Amino acid sequence: MTRRVTSYDVARAAGVSQSTVSRCFRPDGGISKVTRDAVLRVAEELGYNRNALARSLITRRSNMVGVIATKFTIRNNPELVFTLSAALRDHGFGILLLIVETDDTVGDILQQALEYPLDGLISCALMDPRDVERFVRRGLALVFFNRNVAAPWVDCIGTDHAGSSRAMAEAFHAAGHRRILCIGGPVGAPVSRARIDGFTARLAELGGAEVRTVAGNFSYTSGRAVFLDAVRDGARPDAVFCANDQLAMGVMDACRYDLGWRVPGDVSVAGFDDVEEAGRPSYDLVTVAQSGAEMAARAVELLLRRIDDPLAPEVTERVAGRLVRRGSARLG
Amino acid sequence: MTRRVTSYDVARAAGVSQSTVSRCFRPDGGISKVTRDAVLRVAEELGYNRNALARSLITRRSNMVGVIATKFTIRNNPELVFTLSAALRDHGFGILLLIVETDDTVGDILQQALEYPLDGLISCALMDPRDVERFVRRGLALVFFNRNVAAPWVDCIGTDHAGSSRAMAEAFHAAGHRRILCIGGPVGAPVSRARIDGFTARLAELGGAEVRTVAGNFSYTSGRAVFLDAVRDGARPDAVFCANDQLAMGVMDACRYDLGWRVPGDVSVAGFDDVEEAGRPSYDLVTVAQSGAEMAARAVELLLRRIDDPLAPEVTERVAGRLVRRGSARLG
Repeated sequence: MTRRVTSYDVARAAGVSQSTVSRCFRPDGGISKVTRDAVLRVAEELGYNRNALARSLITRRSNMVGVIATKFTIRNNPELVFTLSAALRDHGFGILLLIVETDDTVGDILQQALEYPLDGLISCALMDPRDVERFVRRGLALVFFNRNVAAPWVDCIGTDHAGSSRAMAEAFHAAGHRRILCIGGPVGAPVSRARIDGFTARLAELGGAEVRTVAGNFSYTSGRAVFLDAVRDGARPDAVFCANDQLAMGVMDACRYDLGWRVPGDVSVAGFDDVEEAGRPSYDLVTVAQSGAEMAARAVELLLRRIDDPLAPEVTERVAGRLVRRGSARLG
Repeated sequence: MTRRVTSYDVARAAGVSQSTVSRCFRPDGGISKVTRDAVLRVAEELGYNRNALARSLITRRSNMVGVIATKFTIRNNPELVFTLSAALRDHGFGILLLIVETDDTVGDILQQALEYPLDGLISCALMDPRDVERFVRRGLALVFFNRNVAAPWVDCIGTDHAGSSRAMAEAFHAAGHRRILCIGGPVGAPVSRARIDGFTARLAELGGAEVRTVAGNFSYTSGRAVFLDAVRDGARPDAVFCANDQLAMGVMDACRYDLGWRVPGDVSVAGFDDVEEAGRPSYDLVTVAQSGAEMAARAVELLLRRIDDPLAPEVTERVAGRLVRRGSARLG
């Protein structure tokens, strides 16, 4: 007769206390990643039955998944919501849509999210680590989309913002642009930071460029106003890299309609996202395309895996963006 | 002692059979509107207790409202979804978002909608009368947004598309435009039909204009392609009225980038919706602004009223649009 493996067996084999083993299977256990990984490996080898624990984390099933999205994401990338919705529906899940103003206001809707019997949550916005823990403790599968939140049993998938922006920096540098203006999103916005930091870090490595960075708020109006303000002293940059396409289209229109500067004759302009308008001849915008549909499908896969096995090892996946060469910027 | 008023009392006072009275309180009763209104009026006067019936229609409460929206609505008017979401959340309701490709594919998600314990449904897409009845029979409050579906106990709110388009026709006519091209949405799309019909009917009343109508699919790409096709014989219209802004922006870019025609020097172009890009100097588009936020707030009011009182008389409300005068069209 095979005796059932207990947490005491795992503790003995891993050389830790039973309480440590138990804490390794709780999101708020306060165990270092190194120790936790070692304990989970031993548990796996011994055939310690995680399923009972896993099941205990699941209190109910509703076939409903929450999707937290900022207004910006819905405005700028509605296809993402469509793809998530279609992929979830294919698996029999409905979407409870939770809309937030910005990443900073997610706290406002978390209580609402907890009032519904959700099976899981895909968040396109940042969350406070304590809130992440509240969700995981309730057995809610949690996947972050284009946000990086490191926590036990929480998966992340997103664009490799920094890597794509490094490629843009190389193309700018190779074209000979040396006076470069960067327009970011709001200070602290993680996606904007990754894009701008990747771009400026690569330019610094390449050397010889003078880079100035100012903050916008991801909108067309902000791109236009922030650019006009930045060039008020008449110093024309060679090229402008914006943290998203809306900002870049605002910069292009400021050049063409407010200042009478030609794009790209006088100033090269590039954005990030490849929204639909970016491809129109009225903008013909150089940008970075994200694999939105592919990532959304993968986010749903990760969520389903996590619903099935709440204690599966967490993963973080980065998907490369693609530089889209068009007419708004001279590139090398 | 006051005897409780029964359906037999109502039948006697209204001069109809009891079965007719009973059928007047069922969505599928097959009673003419005239008879039903008369019976309901008598029932009201006698103090016939509708609440018991009303309650019987409500089987459960979930604090969750379904919102059916086409991809087009979400892409083109995300603010509508935001306003609905905020207004519903203020009243303690979450949104189950049901996304459909077009009005024609609503059938695909109705079964999913019925699987969740919704308190009500706001539909921004058309529904088959039999499906409407299925929802109402289950005690689901149902409000149509920018769609007109006449059914007992179903409310509708939307823009006065035809009236706003009549105003556009007058401004076109007064400017002297006589060769006019209309580009609609897909054949049969109700919003497009109301806009194009209102426009062409008013032009016909004013007289002297030659009007041609072609169908597009509400997208920028379609506007550009359909316009190029329509003017392939070289006959340049004086002015183009499009059933939405995306079509109109496609027409403007076809004129400017494909044909070398000036807007509005050679051709006047106008749209409908007043999307964000319409106000940019790169388009500066003449259009009709809808009171989206106001209508969304009102839709939620109607829904809450209907949840409270499932047998309240149905209402249909039309909200006037506002002609936005800008640079893309010469207007009188």
